[in-house]
Amino acid sequence: MTTFQPTFLLHGADYNYEQWLDYPEVLAEDFRLMRAARCNVMSVGIFSWAMLEPTEGEYQFEWLDRLMDSLAENGMRAILATPSGAKPAWLAHKYPEVRLVDEHGRREPYRLRHNHCPTSPIYRAKVQQINRRLAERYRTHPALFMWHASNEYCNFGCRCDLCRDAFRAWLRQRYGSLDALNHAWWTTFWSHRYSDWSQIEPVDPSCHGLMLDWLRFCSDQVLNFYRQEIGPLRELTPDVPITTNFMLPDVGLDYWQFAPHVDVISWDSYPRWHGDQPDSAVAVKAAFMHDLHRSFKARPFLLMESTPSVTNWQGISRPKRPGMHLLSSLQAVAHGANGVQYFQWRQSRGGEEKFHGAVVGHIGGGETRIFGEVAAVGDHLAQLNHLTTTCNQAAVAIIYDFQNEWALKLAQLPRSVEKNYQEQCVAHYRPFWEMGITADVIDSVAADLSAYRLVIAPMLYMLREGVAARLAEFVQNGGTLVLTYLSGLVNESDLCFVGDSPLRPLLGLWVEETDVLYAHNQQTLEATPGNALGLSGSYPATHYADVLHLDGATAVAHYGHDYYAGQPALTVHEAGNGRVYYLAARTDHTFLTDFYGALRQQVNLLRSVSAPLPEGVTAQVRGDGREQTLFLLNFQPTPQTVDLGAVTYDDVVSGTAVSGTVELPAYGLRILRAGK
Amino acid sequence: MTTFQPTFLLHGADYNYEQWLDYPEVLAEDFRLMRAARCNVMSVGIFSWAMLEPTEGEYQFEWLDRLMDSLAENGMRAILATPSGAKPAWLAHKYPEVRLVDEHGRREPYRLRHNHCPTSPIYRAKVQQINRRLAERYRTHPALFMWHASNEYCNFGCRCDLCRDAFRAWLRQRYGSLDALNHAWWTTFWSHRYSDWSQIEPVDPSCHGLMLDWLRFCSDQVLNFYRQEIGPLRELTPDVPITTNFMLPDVGLDYWQFAPHVDVISWDSYPRWHGDQPDSAVAVKAAFMHDLHRSFKARPFLLMESTPSVTNWQGISRPKRPGMHLLSSLQAVAHGANGVQYFQWRQSRGGEEKFHGAVVGHIGGGETRIFGEVAAVGDHLAQLNHLTTTCNQAAVAIIYDFQNEWALKLAQLPRSVEKNYQEQCVAHYRPFWEMGITADVIDSVAADLSAYRLVIAPMLYMLREGVAARLAEFVQNGGTLVLTYLSGLVNESDLCFVGDSPLRPLLGLWVEETDVLYAHNQQTLEATPGNALGLSGSYPATHYADVLHLDGATAVAHYGHDYYAGQPALTVHEAGNGRVYYLAARTDHTFLTDFYGALRQQVNLLRSVSAPLPEGVTAQVRGDGREQTLFLLNFQPTPQTVDLGAVTYDDVVSGTAVSGTVELPAYGLRILRAGK
Amino acid sequence: MTTFQPTFLLHGADYNYEQWLDYPEVLAEDFRLMRAARCNVMSVGIFSWAMLEPTEGEYQFEWLDRLMDSLAENGMRAILATPSGAKPAWLAHKYPEVRLVDEHGRREPYRLRHNHCPTSPIYRAKVQQINRRLAERYRTHPALFMWHASNEYCNFGCRCDLCRDAFRAWLRQRYGSLDALNHAWWTTFWSHRYSDWSQIEPVDPSCHGLMLDWLRFCSDQVLNFYRQEIGPLRELTPDVPITTNFMLPDVGLDYWQFAPHVDVISWDSYPRWHGDQPDSAVAVKAAFMHDLHRSFKARPFLLMESTPSVTNWQGISRPKRPGMHLLSSLQAVAHGANGVQYFQWRQSRGGEEKFHGAVVGHIGGGETRIFGEVAAVGDHLAQLNHLTTTCNQAAVAIIYDFQNEWALKLAQLPRSVEKNYQEQCVAHYRPFWEMGITADVIDSVAADLSAYRLVIAPMLYMLREGVAARLAEFVQNGGTLVLTYLSGLVNESDLCFVGDSPLRPLLGLWVEETDVLYAHNQQTLEATPGNALGLSGSYPATHYADVLHLDGATAVAHYGHDYYAGQPALTVHEAGNGRVYYLAARTDHTFLTDFYGALRQQVNLLRSVSAPLPEGVTAQVRGDGREQTLFLLNFQPTPQTVDLGAVTYDDVVSGTAVSGTVELPAYGLRILRAGK
Repeated sequence: MTTFQPTFLLHGADYNYEQWLDYPEVLAEDFRLMRAARCNVMSVGIFSWAMLEPTEGEYQFEWLDRLMDSLAENGMRAILATPSGAKPAWLAHKYPEVRLVDEHGRREPYRLRHNHCPTSPIYRAKVQQINRRLAERYRTHPALFMWHASNEYCNFGCRCDLCRDAFRAWLRQRYGSLDALNHAWWTTFWSHRYSDWSQIEPVDPSCHGLMLDWLRFCSDQVLNFYRQEIGPLRELTPDVPITTNFMLPDVGLDYWQFAPHVDVISWDSYPRWHGDQPDSAVAVKAAFMHDLHRSFKARPFLLMESTPSVTNWQGISRPKRPGMHLLSSLQAVAHGANGVQYFQWRQSRGGEEKFHGAVVGHIGGGETRIFGEVAAVGDHLAQLNHLTTTCNQAAVAIIYDFQNEWALKLAQLPRSVEKNYQEQCVAHYRPFWEMGITADVIDSVAADLSAYRLVIAPMLYMLREGVAARLAEFVQNGGTLVLTYLSGLVNESDLCFVGDSPLRPLLGLWVEETDVLYAHNQQTLEATPGNALGLSGSYPATHYADVLHLDGATAVAHYGHDYYAGQPALTVHEAGNGRVYYLAARTDHTFLTDFYGALRQQVNLLRSVSAPLPEGVTAQVRGDGREQTLFLLNFQPTPQTVDLGAVTYDDVVSGTAVSGTVELPAYGLRILRAGK
Repeated sequence: MTTFQPTFLLHGADYNYEQWLDYPEVLAEDFRLMRAARCNVMSVGIFSWAMLEPTEGEYQFEWLDRLMDSLAENGMRAILATPSGAKPAWLAHKYPEVRLVDEHGRREPYRLRHNHCPTSPIYRAKVQQINRRLAERYRTHPALFMWHASNEYCNFGCRCDLCRDAFRAWLRQRYGSLDALNHAWWTTFWSHRYSDWSQIEPVDPSCHGLMLDWLRFCSDQVLNFYRQEIGPLRELTPDVPITTNFMLPDVGLDYWQFAPHVDVISWDSYPRWHGDQPDSAVAVKAAFMHDLHRSFKARPFLLMESTPSVTNWQGISRPKRPGMHLLSSLQAVAHGANGVQYFQWRQSRGGEEKFHGAVVGHIGGGETRIFGEVAAVGDHLAQLNHLTTTCNQAAVAIIYDFQNEWALKLAQLPRSVEKNYQEQCVAHYRPFWEMGITADVIDSVAADLSAYRLVIAPMLYMLREGVAARLAEFVQNGGTLVLTYLSGLVNESDLCFVGDSPLRPLLGLWVEETDVLYAHNQQTLEATPGNALGLSGSYPATHYADVLHLDGATAVAHYGHDYYAGQPALTVHEAGNGRVYYLAARTDHTFLTDFYGALRQQVNLLRSVSAPLPEGVTAQVRGDGREQTLFLLNFQPTPQTVDLGAVTYDDVVSGTAVSGTVELPAYGLRILRAGK
Repeated sequence: MTTFQPTFLLHGADYNYEQWLDYPEVLAEDFRLMRAARCNVMSVGIFSWAMLEPTEGEYQFEWLDRLMDSLAENGMRAILATPSGAKPAWLAHKYPEVRLVDEHGRREPYRLRHNHCPTSPIYRAKVQQINRRLAERYRTHPALFMWHASNEYCNFGCRCDLCRDAFRAWLRQRYGSLDALNHAWWTTFWSHRYSDWSQIEPVDPSCHGLMLDWLRFCSDQVLNFYRQEIGPLRELTPDVPITTNFMLPDVGLDYWQFAPHVDVISWDSYPRWHGDQPDSAVAVKAAFMHDLHRSFKARPFLLMESTPSVTNWQGISRPKRPGMHLLSSLQAVAHGANGVQYFQWRQSRGGEEKFHGAVVGHIGGGETRIFGEVAAVGDHLAQLNHLTTTCNQAAVAIIYDFQNEWALKLAQLPRSVEKNYQEQCVAHYRPFWEMGITADVIDSVAADLSAYRLVIAPMLYMLREGVAARLAEFVQNGGTLVLTYLSGLVNESDLCFVGDSPLRPLLGLWVEETDVLYAHNQQTLEATPGNALGLSGSYPATHYADVLHLDGATAVAHYGHDYYAGQPALTVHEAGNGRVYYLAARTDHTFLTDFYGALRQQVNLLRSVSAPLPEGVTAQVRGDGREQTLFLLNFQPTPQTVDLGAVTYDDVVSGTAVSGTVELPAYGLRILRAGK
């Protein structure tokens, strides 16, 4: 494990030099433009296997030598990729086992990418060979800055015999005996008891325990592949940090398992700016994801891919309006990124992504609006190198648990439509973003809760081993916990708890039944008179509404309608030195704003800026204990004004002192330094 | 064939005792709660093959012994299932032929349920073996009450070689020669003439005769499977009645063929209460289905599955509001059910249906609202045992013909969108439900029409052998018949009639062409001045509108628009001692209400209650020739008042005398006895 | 190649005599009715292989002899089909290779039609054999009028080994070397470089060059099949013309490649009259297609299939309202058809198309409304035989390029939703239809541009070899050219142009970026004050909006909103003796009406009738240089009035002289002769 501590913020892009070997004038222009945009690190070699090893055992590194040399000559460094994300044609044809098999038993033909078998010994060996060659050749090259393992690993979903056998071995390891497995998966249901390990096939949507374990196995197997693939890199270049670009949402990997094995977290971010939702809503989700990636290691991360303008795979993707590229790039930095990279430097002439946005388009040149916006990012980053030693500090955390998400997706509920787990996590995060309060996004198992004063776990359907106890301990020690409907229904094997929920003592209540609502049904939360949070009025409740019985908790709000009108809908329970809130129904943003506004005061959370922020504006802080850098980010298409109060800051870009009210242009930002 | 004549109404549920063998405290609690809910018959053993025969030839009946003994000890009886609905893993793996093959030639992997090959000799032999063991072991057990053959048989759609060969043999039997088959299927179209039986494959959507026969074969083959599977039961327990739970709509079986081979009709009913449609509309459809199941044998039936609260497979399924469970359960009884059973007694800990509603939830106990509602059903049923000797008597019948439905689904029409055959049958049934008039739901071939004064056959597209003559005879003998657009187009082989329709003499008209309408097109039925039914005004016509020519019939209504304005749209033809109405266009509920209201008087049908009923309320009667029990059922979420007039009844529940106006609570009911 | 020059207009239908051999009374009635409807040519033998060769090598031509004789005896002729559109069962079973293999590697079972392998040597040989037999037997038969090769050829999409090998051979021919192919397909992207021809498989949606070439190969292979299939016909009946019925849109054939090998263009037209769109819009699209088919050979064509009433495969298909059948049939003639044929003469008794409209329905007889409408067509055609020597003359052409359509469909763009290439071509055509100005519809490569004064090429994304030069030459020589957004992005291999677009000198501008718009985004074109076209006001812009820079062109209109407000949106560039307009955004019909109205005057295009036509009415002219026949066609459901001015015509039907204003009934037409 290598600690990554750069002394500058990274700026660069995926660069497919190898596509342009026949175009020397293009390559020369590229380096000129990189300098103009103040690029310092380029990601290279991604998907270059067929150029490095055109036929089996025949290597051709000269072009990469020239690329690495050119980078060095131009004062740049390389994030050098291993090429396992896409295999050459010869490999796919000579060794069919490297191609994945789908759920119908069909072996994938040669095409696309990210579709290899993660178990295949041949694929693993071939990947290790080429990686070893790369490491041997460039271990001492001055341009080598970081390794980029493969590309966007995901759950390939391979169901070949090799994978099935590996799955059975994994199960044997996990359960020890078939009896234990049969109980954990409750296979007596529909007569599915296994009498031999060989009977287990990962294709039964009715056996949720099986499918959940299959998802876990797939994630583990890809992690295992990754660990094998980086073996030669660790061996030959122990001091070169390794990253791999994460991709959210929903690629079927539990990144919390990956994080300890990755030196630097990096991810690929493609928000749908200017789309069907207001940009401020898009910004909240992007912020949530940035905070998640920072939380993976509680350290700064890298934005590994982002588009300077459009994508070409989202149906409709509008060009970023003027200002948005700088704003969204610096947003990543504000949330903890130590660099901004793009996909892609230059648009390909052919292939599926030839119309994906790039720093340099087909038209070429540095005179375009987009190039200007990219260069502005370069200029800003160059003034922010002091941030490399800083990070963001949170007293609030939202639990967003991948395994819980998988289990919830599998669950067949009275309302299976619009479960929207991730969206709900973001909804609970949004009030903090709006208040300018830093939040972490954490796992239910991997995270250390003691760092927080407030922990929020929306829809924590599955309580994995130890989680109930950890939550109880957190509260016991003075923490404030928020739980919601659909919490604590099943254990790690997706088996329902029988009798009292393990959360009953913590919550001080039990849930008798859960109403589910169509969009046309009416239900409300009514603030209970005299409630401790000072809530008042009525809020809509939708989708899910638990009917519950108090056993120690007290009502903060109650239902306004239907046969359970007047029964508690939001409760609080004092436990040990802390307290637990239970929100029994899904609510809207207005309620969450009022609720977390009240909790903020109760828990005493500090806002980055003391006055309330205008809608669509956030304030995020990075610091190092000595001084703080404040980012004011305006995601509105109109100018906004922020009241800084009496505090005086230095504007990083203009160098002038700032206090009182400051103006943010449309899609504009201010970066302010304080406290030196 | 055993006649089933219970002396009490059944109350119970599917009970998966075998899932809880490791939880003795759960089992003890179960029996305590069954007594509390006044359960008397439990359905057991469904999907228990892997627990009965964990590996091939190794049997383990001890748990079932204990269950049967416990039922007996607690004063209960068992509906004992054969386990063929789901096969054990060892069977599926050792004998691949038992797994079905889909239309793409892929053999189903081991998973799910209801997916075996109905032809496989091995599966049939294995099923017979386990069934014989069950019959041998429990033939004299005091708890054995009834057999529950398999579970929800359906058209498995297996296309393996065994099934294809069986299909060809079935065709040889049906047609005798390839020439006859080629003519019946009109294979000269698109050059599809077969020159050898082996060329026939059931995968050609363009050959409707072929696909229709394939559906018939599949239904017959499942019936054949059923008859073979119950062989050991008939042999060893000739006095124990056999049922199998039907499942509608649309499982691909012609239940009219099954009915003679089943001792007791039972079915699984899952209406979508509180959903997108008003509850009264849901109630009408449920009532139609209950009446259909009563009509299968013209005898009382059993409600074999229903949920006490929610389902977990309908996307959104709201908990039954207070009162609805009692109401919907007694609705089944009102229409002829001799028992109310639930799926399921206790929620599973795991598997796909773990969140399906149950009498006992994960939380357990008898204190829940749902448990209380179930116990109330038990209390009511215990007071209604006199009903076991009664049934419902109808003078009206709606023809709902499965084979017609299949043929209509296959048909490529100028308007193939929204054919909605079943919905239209329900639409023609609904006015009778609203008037409180009992209706039967019958087949075009299997039913005895002479029992009725009024027969309605919506969209009887296919006239199977003899049907035209039977309809004519019914009318000749004084019956009133209603036919509609899309009637009498094809024969039993889906061959169009050439030249005059066989219905022309009966209808006294011929159809020249059929207009089809988009939702935005305007058409109306205008009551013809002086029409014999006393109709007046204008009604919307939609979807289909025949342009027709009278040849003996007279117009009751005519079209209001378009190039056929003024031409007849509803006609009547006197034929023999009866008359035939032809409704040439699809109409709405208002028209059908007026039309059948007028016909009621013409045909002299008696309403259960003489005054009109409020909207959403029906009145259904069960009697035995001596006395009658009247059910007043209110499917509105608000109280309703019914005027009983001068008749005096005894309220079965309260024991008090009732006459004049009675109040029905929201989702409430009254059960009244008269005429003793 | 045979020149087809009939002396009469054809009238007839697909006639499936072979389905009715057991029904002699039906056959006799058929010929009686054909005479009544003034049919003169019937299409026969389509899909009759199984009747001609019931088992391998056993032929049975007697029925066809009788049919041909009967036609001759009744004064009619035959368009005799080869039967390759559907194979007999024995052939499919004995030789599996004749059945296509889908993209998942599954060989199609025997079913449906149009699903053979176009490469299979066995299928080709069998087709040649049966075709040779047909030609030998009927070469001298007096009824033989024309050959109808197969039916609705399409890209079968077969991916069997034979087709894959043929594709690789085709590629070797096209590219010469793998290096050339790798460059053309830009396979370095995602590491897809091929090191051996055998690695190429046509199943990679990410490699657009590959998929585009696969589509080209499939089209070529079907053409190759066609050319082999007609070999015996050409050899034995060199003077009998050959047609094959085209089918649009979207069957995957580049008909521009077919046209030189077909003696007579014919096509199957099924507009959705009376559907979701106004009939006038349906008429415009039908007119566009007729003009396309006339343009294929710049000669009259045949309407080979059309329905007299409804279809049965469009979900909802309304019967043609009174008048519409005559109107739509004569519309084809007005645009250049020398005959009107129907699918089908008589409805089949069975099979998928038994409810498709026909001249004779199941009810039979000549007394129906539909039969009367067909007979009216016969009467009209008989009075128009002078048209056989005439054609339509256009000075305007719309480029509608099949290969461009394929490439655009493959393209992944920032807005891939609603590219709507064909719809946009029709949108640019519509103003001319409304003005009564004849337009051709041409290819970008195959067409001779010098024949036109105005050429419009909407969305010409792909510039194939030589196209840029041809367009430039056209303008240089004085032509007026209109190009739009999404033009000239890629070359023939779907490789993006790097640096300046080849269109830059012609357009006098360059495109920096392209905004894409959601439906809720606002953008407008604002007429630039003093623009040369006299445009004024503001028009909505949608979907795509190029941001561009002038380099010689001048602005005619500019954008009204967003960050590029005020920048040019419509430009004109004088080049040589001509000029080029560039329309940078998608616009609505109002704009196109104004724009082309202005261009009409600038380019001096003559309208068929000098006064403006009412909405929904067009005027089309066929002439032979000496005299002209004017068709006034009213697609409105209400009467319309046309002002002929001072010109005097002879009404072909009534024989009277006509001038001034004439009345067109609802769905009515007038055929007027002038200039003799």
